Amino acid sequence: MSDPAFGAPEALMARALRLAERGMMTTHPNPRVGCVIVRDGIIVGEGAHERAGEPHAEVHALRSAGDRARGADVYVSLEPCCHHGRTPPCTDALIAAGVARVFVATADPNPKVAGQGIQRLRAAGIEVHVGLLAAEAQRINRGFFARMMRGRPWLVLKLAMSLDARTAMASGESQWITGEAARADAHRLRAEAGAVLTGVGTVVADDPRLSARGLGEGVRQPDRIVLDTQARAPVHARVWQPGARRLWITRQLPPIVPEGVTVVLAGADAQGRIDLKDALQALARHEVNEILAECGPRLAGSLLEQGLVDEIIAYVAPKLLGDQARPLAHLPGIERLTQALVWRWVDVRQIGDDVRLILQPRTCI
Amino acid sequence: MSDPAFGAPEALMARALRLAERGMMTTHPNPRVGCVIVRDGIIVGEGAHERAGEPHAEVHALRSAGDRARGADVYVSLEPCCHHGRTPPCTDALIAAGVARVFVATADPNPKVAGQGIQRLRAAGIEVHVGLLAAEAQRINRGFFARMMRGRPWLVLKLAMSLDARTAMASGESQWITGEAARADAHRLRAEAGAVLTGVGTVVADDPRLSARGLGEGVRQPDRIVLDTQARAPVHARVWQPGARRLWITRQLPPIVPEGVTVVLAGADAQGRIDLKDALQALARHEVNEILAECGPRLAGSLLEQGLVDEIIAYVAPKLLGDQARPLAHLPGIERLTQALVWRWVDVRQIGDDVRLILQPRTCI
Repeated sequence: MSDPAFGAPEALMARALRLAERGMMTTHPNPRVGCVIVRDGIIVGEGAHERAGEPHAEVHALRSAGDRARGADVYVSLEPCCHHGRTPPCTDALIAAGVARVFVATADPNPKVAGQGIQRLRAAGIEVHVGLLAAEAQRINRGFFARMMRGRPWLVLKLAMSLDARTAMASGESQWITGEAARADAHRLRAEAGAVLTGVGTVVADDPRLSARGLGEGVRQPDRIVLDTQARAPVHARVWQPGARRLWITRQLPPIVPEGVTVVLAGADAQGRIDLKDALQALARHEVNEILAECGPRLAGSLLEQGLVDEIIAYVAPKLLGDQARPLAHLPGIERLTQALVWRWVDVRQIGDDVRLILQPRTCI
Repeated sequence: MSDPAFGAPEALMARALRLAERGMMTTHPNPRVGCVIVRDGIIVGEGAHERAGEPHAEVHALRSAGDRARGADVYVSLEPCCHHGRTPPCTDALIAAGVARVFVATADPNPKVAGQGIQRLRAAGIEVHVGLLAAEAQRINRGFFARMMRGRPWLVLKLAMSLDARTAMASGESQWITGEAARADAHRLRAEAGAVLTGVGTVVADDPRLSARGLGEGVRQPDRIVLDTQARAPVHARVWQPGARRLWITRQLPPIVPEGVTVVLAGADAQGRIDLKDALQALARHEVNEILAECGPRLAGSLLEQGLVDEIIAYVAPKLLGDQARPLAHLPGIERLTQALVWRWVDVRQIGDDVRLILQPRTCI
């Protein structure tokens, strides 16, 4: 190996994180995890968790290492599990393999693990180091961490708009404001989030599919979530077509429920509409880690006003649509500048013909 | 000189362009020009035009070169003048100094020069090369080129807005949407443009000074231009205060004209308001090279709709102000997406807490 920094613990954990990212579009509701096994400065095994129900990263890595795992160092991007889920505990497999040291990027926030995996390894005499590249490891699984730690999915509000922040013409016409590269990027967002949320107004007006397209084989199609206080969504809406989990969040039992659609009854806010926070908590109970919200200005405004948006991703087309076109977000509560919702830039770049702006609240989790 | 590329013609012309840029805030209405004189691979003289009425770049460079200019190469960012203006012709000075070759980045579009300077040098037996870094040289003087070549100043529309493209609250409150760094950058824009334009609505509502502040000594204060069909601007408005040239563009003779203010009567459009193209042509006749427009959504919309904006510079604050706040541009003529005004990105970057977006029309001069 010509790179002298290659064997550094940070470099090996970074490699485990890159392996974890292989599962960005497939592991939901499980976290993405990568694992690297090193002995005498040589990588003897590595693996990633690919899909819920399939082996964990540690198991893949141990299998590829075989006997060479004995006395080796293990770099794993999330605390190994110690409970019997759909697969046996990884802690037991690591102990059985006789590894010497385990580097864990971050503890697992899942209450079924939550440090017990680390304890179990230590009790077996394995040296365990926790916290290497912890922030990066948590970022890869921000949805999983949000669900586990606050009982609410990570919510990204996706916006596609003109320079004057218009998302559609007054007529509703909006195909397409942004270009092909931005739309492809947005499909990637859907697949990575694992769930797409919209309001019944958008379902009625645009009949979107909310699927992740153009990403090749093996992508887990994101859950499709419709917020619909009065259960007005048409039974034949494309959003209800098979191919993904479909969740109909409502305050009224629909007379007809399309096959395979899960109806989730949510609490009411003061106006008798769906209580958004309650709905998001219900979605966390349905194992939704992360949500990409693609909705109209009213739902967008409500989510923003109630502080339920963790990230805004805005694709801005270099176009002007004028002040008759539809606004970005309805925020009736803001009358003075001091009431403005204040964010911070996370990333700013060109994506094809458009600019993509990523923002998070000035104070974020 | 350790850099082997230093002596390359491109590098020397680039140096002349950097010298020209010294005059970004001072030479109006003259173009910015830089000059480098080289003999035997050594820079023997250089200079820049600093201020209208003062010596041209070539004169400064020849003075510093003295006798060493004989047989030397001259790199100048704009064709040397051949007419008697406020200073004698530079062509004569170059010929008298006995220079061997002259590299000219671009011909001077001024009809008083327009190739005649080059001809005169050639007639005197000097080898002249034209076109080295021509695009860069024209960009430095885009206002001067626009005025000379199309009889209309280069017009930049400056916008300061929230992520949802709002420029003020419904009440008019707008101080401050963007942060300090963006505001400082905007003061630089004013000084470089050399003229700031606004509408009477802004004068009445905000009473702006339209001055360039925080840029140190020696800055030529930009012309202040008010578009005001009915001559409604208050006589005591701050925009009329001394310290810069002030131009009152109107359709009606004001009863009282503040001292030092020039009244410019412009033609009318179909609605009896100021014809904007006519007004801009009048400003070109008043030797305005470049204009920074800082105005409300109606004037911004009219300038955009009529294709009179050469560049948009938008400072975007990471804030949401909501759909009750004031829109960016009033564009009543756009009803369908195919009617959208389409631009292209020139520059996208963070400036302090804000993002600065620079756009030009998809088809630009």
